[in-house]
Amino acid sequence: MEKWRATSRHLLRHFSKDLFDRRMSPSFGTFNRQLSSVATTIQRNPLFSSINSDDISHFKEILGEKNVIHDEEKLVTANMDWMRKYRGSSKLMLQPRTTEEVSQILKYCNSRCLAVVPQGGNTGLVGGSVPVFDEVIISTSSMSKIVSFDKVSGILVCEAGCILENLVSFLDNQGFIMPLDLGAKGSCQIGGNVSTNAGGLRLVRYGSLHGNVLGLEVVLANGTVLDMLRTLRKDNTGYDLKHLFIGSEGSLGIVSKVSMLTPPKLSSVNLAFLACKDYSSCQKLLLAAKRKLGEILSAFEFLDTQALDLVLKHLEGARNPLPTSMHNFYILMETTGSNESYDKEKLEAFLLHSMEGGLISDGVLAQDINQASSFWHIREGLPEALMKAGAVYKYDLSLPVEKMYDLVEEMRIRLGPAANVVGYGHLGDSNLHLNISTPQYDDAILAQIEPFVYEWTSKHHGSISAEHGLGLMKADKIFYSKSPETVSIILVGSYLLPKSLCIDIVLLLAFKSISMTKFP
Amino acid sequence: MEKWRATSRHLLRHFSKDLFDRRMSPSFGTFNRQLSSVATTIQRNPLFSSINSDDISHFKEILGEKNVIHDEEKLVTANMDWMRKYRGSSKLMLQPRTTEEVSQILKYCNSRCLAVVPQGGNTGLVGGSVPVFDEVIISTSSMSKIVSFDKVSGILVCEAGCILENLVSFLDNQGFIMPLDLGAKGSCQIGGNVSTNAGGLRLVRYGSLHGNVLGLEVVLANGTVLDMLRTLRKDNTGYDLKHLFIGSEGSLGIVSKVSMLTPPKLSSVNLAFLACKDYSSCQKLLLAAKRKLGEILSAFEFLDTQALDLVLKHLEGARNPLPTSMHNFYILMETTGSNESYDKEKLEAFLLHSMEGGLISDGVLAQDINQASSFWHIREGLPEALMKAGAVYKYDLSLPVEKMYDLVEEMRIRLGPAANVVGYGHLGDSNLHLNISTPQYDDAILAQIEPFVYEWTSKHHGSISAEHGLGLMKADKIFYSKSPETVSIILVGSYLLPKSLCIDIVLLLAFKSISMTKFP
Repeated sequence: MEKWRATSRHLLRHFSKDLFDRRMSPSFGTFNRQLSSVATTIQRNPLFSSINSDDISHFKEILGEKNVIHDEEKLVTANMDWMRKYRGSSKLMLQPRTTEEVSQILKYCNSRCLAVVPQGGNTGLVGGSVPVFDEVIISTSSMSKIVSFDKVSGILVCEAGCILENLVSFLDNQGFIMPLDLGAKGSCQIGGNVSTNAGGLRLVRYGSLHGNVLGLEVVLANGTVLDMLRTLRKDNTGYDLKHLFIGSEGSLGIVSKVSMLTPPKLSSVNLAFLACKDYSSCQKLLLAAKRKLGEILSAFEFLDTQALDLVLKHLEGARNPLPTSMHNFYILMETTGSNESYDKEKLEAFLLHSMEGGLISDGVLAQDINQASSFWHIREGLPEALMKAGAVYKYDLSLPVEKMYDLVEEMRIRLGPAANVVGYGHLGDSNLHLNISTPQYDDAILAQIEPFVYEWTSKHHGSISAEHGLGLMKADKIFYSKSPETVSIILVGSYLLPKSLCIDIVLLLAFKSISMTKFP
Repeated sequence: MEKWRATSRHLLRHFSKDLFDRRMSPSFGTFNRQLSSVATTIQRNPLFSSINSDDISHFKEILGEKNVIHDEEKLVTANMDWMRKYRGSSKLMLQPRTTEEVSQILKYCNSRCLAVVPQGGNTGLVGGSVPVFDEVIISTSSMSKIVSFDKVSGILVCEAGCILENLVSFLDNQGFIMPLDLGAKGSCQIGGNVSTNAGGLRLVRYGSLHGNVLGLEVVLANGTVLDMLRTLRKDNTGYDLKHLFIGSEGSLGIVSKVSMLTPPKLSSVNLAFLACKDYSSCQKLLLAAKRKLGEILSAFEFLDTQALDLVLKHLEGARNPLPTSMHNFYILMETTGSNESYDKEKLEAFLLHSMEGGLISDGVLAQDINQASSFWHIREGLPEALMKAGAVYKYDLSLPVEKMYDLVEEMRIRLGPAANVVGYGHLGDSNLHLNISTPQYDDAILAQIEPFVYEWTSKHHGSISAEHGLGLMKADKIFYSKSPETVSIILVGSYLLPKSLCIDIVLLLAFKSISMTKFP
């Protein structure tokens, strides 16, 4: 009790926004593609211990020799994010195979004041899954078992380290699908998906993980295992705490198991690649599709001509499905239903009507799975193409759909020819991926973009992170999207979980308190 | 800060389950249809003040004379629940018209140590919306404005006191529907729906409120207004606190505004009333419907022959859609889609195939809206018919679909001819409404039912409250559905919100700590 109070006082001292702002400088300006570390601007908190040989021996006892990785070469990948923007200097990665092992690790780290960072597939884009200093990396990669699948209810229970694509394949054999799908599916893990409330391509149809996750098992900072692993569609018996862990980016505990409602696989899938002359037509097409295709609409993605250009230039194997003329906007529209002939007729009638009405300028329907894959390759390959094109400033924004593209156009005017401003994303969910591509990182460009992009988003009641999370990149930007009262409660809310002085603080990563948390 | 700590110590003294069990006797045995009050078994907490004339004057200053109801006759309805099972003795009902007024009321009550109970349409079935002693009733009925509706995104923002049916009518004119529908729609309010995480008839299609509520405005115990009223489909900027308030039964704060995603109204709705020879056929039919009708399935309700009998006997205007012979089970299956002729063909083909395969014994498709209404009248009128039939012991359970009806059959054997055991509910969501009808309440019958029904549910990993909530009825039963660790955190979690000694405690109603909360 006393310890807990001491902690709370410690945290409360850092509540003020001003204080935080003084301590935290914008992280974006401090890295470049040569892998300089953001950590240079932030001090390691001396309250945390450093790993010693006794710790390593202890972990080997718990996990066995081969699951305690301290070989520096092997740690390079785990210390760095996919974008190569954030780099830590962890000396130790642990690979527990069971919830009990995760619990033992956390209990020990807690008692030894060792900072930790949970890591799944390490595919995040905001620096949330890599260490910043020498945190112990707790990897969920060795926890990849499917615990159960109920073909009657479609409820899947699996361990946190299951790779999304493996779950997709498993379910495909059972006649079901995952309610989420994203470009990183070959590497990302379900525990990370849940911890970051991943969105992706199917949200327009199946909704967010808050609707699809039925239960979680979570290990808290002090090693307590919280069993909320229900397999029920409905359960109104008190506060539904699992929702706090969905999207909390590992800051409240490590997700060890997930229970998820999976929809039946329907037999008829159609994919169209369409061109629109302007953004207004894209919007109108979306509205019409929601109304006319209603229950079979399963994806509605958009990209602008700059995005398609970039993909065609930099992405291996990308081909323009509409090569005869250039258009300003492109739409990928998918339908999924239970009757091939009805769905196709319905879709074709809709497309014909939209073309006659001028909403669509041109378009093509995928004739087989290869053609469908090549259409998806364009959309899903965009992040890779952007990486290959040079430096990239990435923003993941929720905005009212009618305002969404205004930001892209304003940004183009603002930056002029110095940058290639690219807009694409999940139009069906009002989620814009604004990407600014330049030959190399340049602080002057960054100063033109930020805080403008956040202020613009906030002014239009948007969110500065639609699906990527806050991570290291946007932890200090939370006030652009949340009211001060809400943030205060978020911080007070950190007392929700039993914990002691050290791990507490680490587990608060990703919020305003990041200056004293993510950076031990 | 000091006050907050004092509160936390006060609550911590009451953490132990044993202590709670000693203080709280089963509520069910203490009421009867002659309106005896559950409060007789529980002591009013002397820490709470009583209303005096200064308080009333103060409230009149804030709200105006006519929104301060202290006329005893007018308070009778507000003091009693719809089932006439729970009765309080509140001397005061306040009807704020704005969030600011709710805030002023709570701030004042907090400072004066006056216990409060929020009340919406007062249609709950577990004693969550009525006072137990003399709590101040804060009614949301005068907060019934629609704040905004965006026809592009389908996002509705409205005040908490909007009656669900009024929202349905409003949206109908705009070409949209509410993602939830329940029998109480003519009286229940959206704030109460959100606070109790109401399920209902459309959950099988549109999912729970955790997926459909985009934002909330909530007033905390000390009067702080928490603005989480976002209108975005995606927002991953830190803990999504609104989920804590969804289903917390008013215990963490009063919902004052709601932002909700509403689906487009689709043109084609079909409703079938079907008969099955056994429960196994019902299950198989559900599985087949999910697969074959997939995206157009919008409701899948079941009732047993005892339920239909009861409705035909006691519900005005109820007629048997399949009068020629009796069947063991009946299914109400609805489809909603965007193309009348495709949907009808698909449904008819499905029904024909199911009949040929023996899954369906008989059935009829509603030919017009009147026929559809009369089918729904049977299902929606069941609670009323049960009330008219005599005393009723109601249980709202989530169970694995294949086990669900076993409980009904076991209960029939257990109770013998002394009781009419009736099973119906949302088969598509594995939600059983088990109702036991007797001529009058009888403690011996109750002792046969409880704790057996809760133990059975817990043994089969079900939930003792699928959609009704805990309320007063099941507050002390939480351990049947939640692990001790989770409950501890729920209690610690109550420190999440800024508050002082009195209101804190009231606002913890509906949990294990109810002995010191709901009962001031």
